[in-house]
Amino acid sequence: MRYLITLSYDGTNYKGYQTQPGLITIQEQIEKALTKINNGKKTAFTSSGRTDKGVHAKMQCGHADLDINITEYKLKRAMNSNLPEDIHVIKTEKVENNFHARYDILEKTYEYYINIGEYNPIERNYVFQYNYKLNVEKMQEGIKYLLGEHDFRAFVTESKEKENCVRTISKATVEKTTDNIIKFTFTGNGFLRYQIRNMVGILIKVGEEKESPEYVETFLNKKDRSQGGKTAPAEGLYLTNIRYK
Amino acid sequence: MRYLITLSYDGTNYKGYQTQPGLITIQEQIEKALTKINNGKKTAFTSSGRTDKGVHAKMQCGHADLDINITEYKLKRAMNSNLPEDIHVIKTEKVENNFHARYDILEKTYEYYINIGEYNPIERNYVFQYNYKLNVEKMQEGIKYLLGEHDFRAFVTESKEKENCVRTISKATVEKTTDNIIKFTFTGNGFLRYQIRNMVGILIKVGEEKESPEYVETFLNKKDRSQGGKTAPAEGLYLTNIRYK
Repeated sequence: MRYLITLSYDGTNYKGYQTQPGLITIQEQIEKALTKINNGKKTAFTSSGRTDKGVHAKMQCGHADLDINITEYKLKRAMNSNLPEDIHVIKTEKVENNFHARYDILEKTYEYYINIGEYNPIERNYVFQYNYKLNVEKMQEGIKYLLGEHDFRAFVTESKEKENCVRTISKATVEKTTDNIIKFTFTGNGFLRYQIRNMVGILIKVGEEKESPEYVETFLNKKDRSQGGKTAPAEGLYLTNIRYK
Repeated sequence: MRYLITLSYDGTNYKGYQTQPGLITIQEQIEKALTKINNGKKTAFTSSGRTDKGVHAKMQCGHADLDINITEYKLKRAMNSNLPEDIHVIKTEKVENNFHARYDILEKTYEYYINIGEYNPIERNYVFQYNYKLNVEKMQEGIKYLLGEHDFRAFVTESKEKENCVRTISKATVEKTTDNIIKFTFTGNGFLRYQIRNMVGILIKVGEEKESPEYVETFLNKKDRSQGGKTAPAEGLYLTNIRYK
């Protein structure tokens, strides 16, 4: 029986999402809980995609196949009693056996938070502590160039010469949610590794008025990461929604 | 030269505010930084009052006497480069030598946050994860009984038979800030140890509809802590403002 599992987690104390030998990861914790519930049979968890070290999820999804027949509510309860306090199952649903948590994605949404006010120790792991002024209007102009279908090669940190880097972004906004907090929202059919943090990095340059809003388009068209740009830190990034077909 | 130092901190990783042998505390970290800046001369930090283990401060104040002459801005910078990332100096001010960070307090404000929605792993150390419905209107009726001058003995956890427990609360409110977050605000001329968390504990009983709003007055008038009541957990509590004469 295949289950779709929706969860949230605090990425602060993990070395990343994907299982790696010798490092405690989120995937490992989830698979450990699933294996225990599945009467000790090693059980895989296939997520919608990995999140990097320090990145959080208000909503992450994945599927797992269990040999036992357990109600959705009982599976949620069993998982939460076997997971550490920084990972939480919100919902479980029985799905068709051909459902796939990665291949069946329609859209994913990420949010990114920046503090432009005084350093806040309470939010140091949850909001990027930039702590300088940023011009939000300029960033609002610049972010529009990211909308639509583009080859996002320029925003990929690793060398991906052969990989298809064409993705479509259907929503890209930046706004102040309070006097000192800036929130970015990106929705698209998929994102490359570090893409969001690299897009935020370029937008910060625009917000600093070191580059014009049009520079976002210039940078995108270069299709070459080595042209520069900073990767915004992990702690400001949240996976917040996944829509399936 | 006496300095008034305003700071913020994340209480999660500390055993409490006050210096205790063998335990790392916030006071210890501040005094270590001050001592280093004051050319190694052991320097005391006298705060507005301690906060308990796990309690946070959006604003805490204290005074310290330094032998060196340092500008306010340079002292802020020097402290922040010597403090861990979960404690931050917001401001320093030169004050008169007879200023006292505890005795000269006019008013202190605390906030307390409860999540009545789904458990949120990202906020587990910053918002009390109650995760059940609470009747906010009933709590709003009940909280009014705490306003004004009262003997708050009933809300003190430790035996304080001989101590004066009369305090004045000038503001006591409870409201929803989002669908799932309830925020309490208390302003007063001073608060006893565990008083806020015990007041919140009684108000939760009212919100659960296990007690009527009038029970807050009944409980207050008992002047006896042993009559019951739960202490709300530390992680929801924030010291947020201190006003001086």
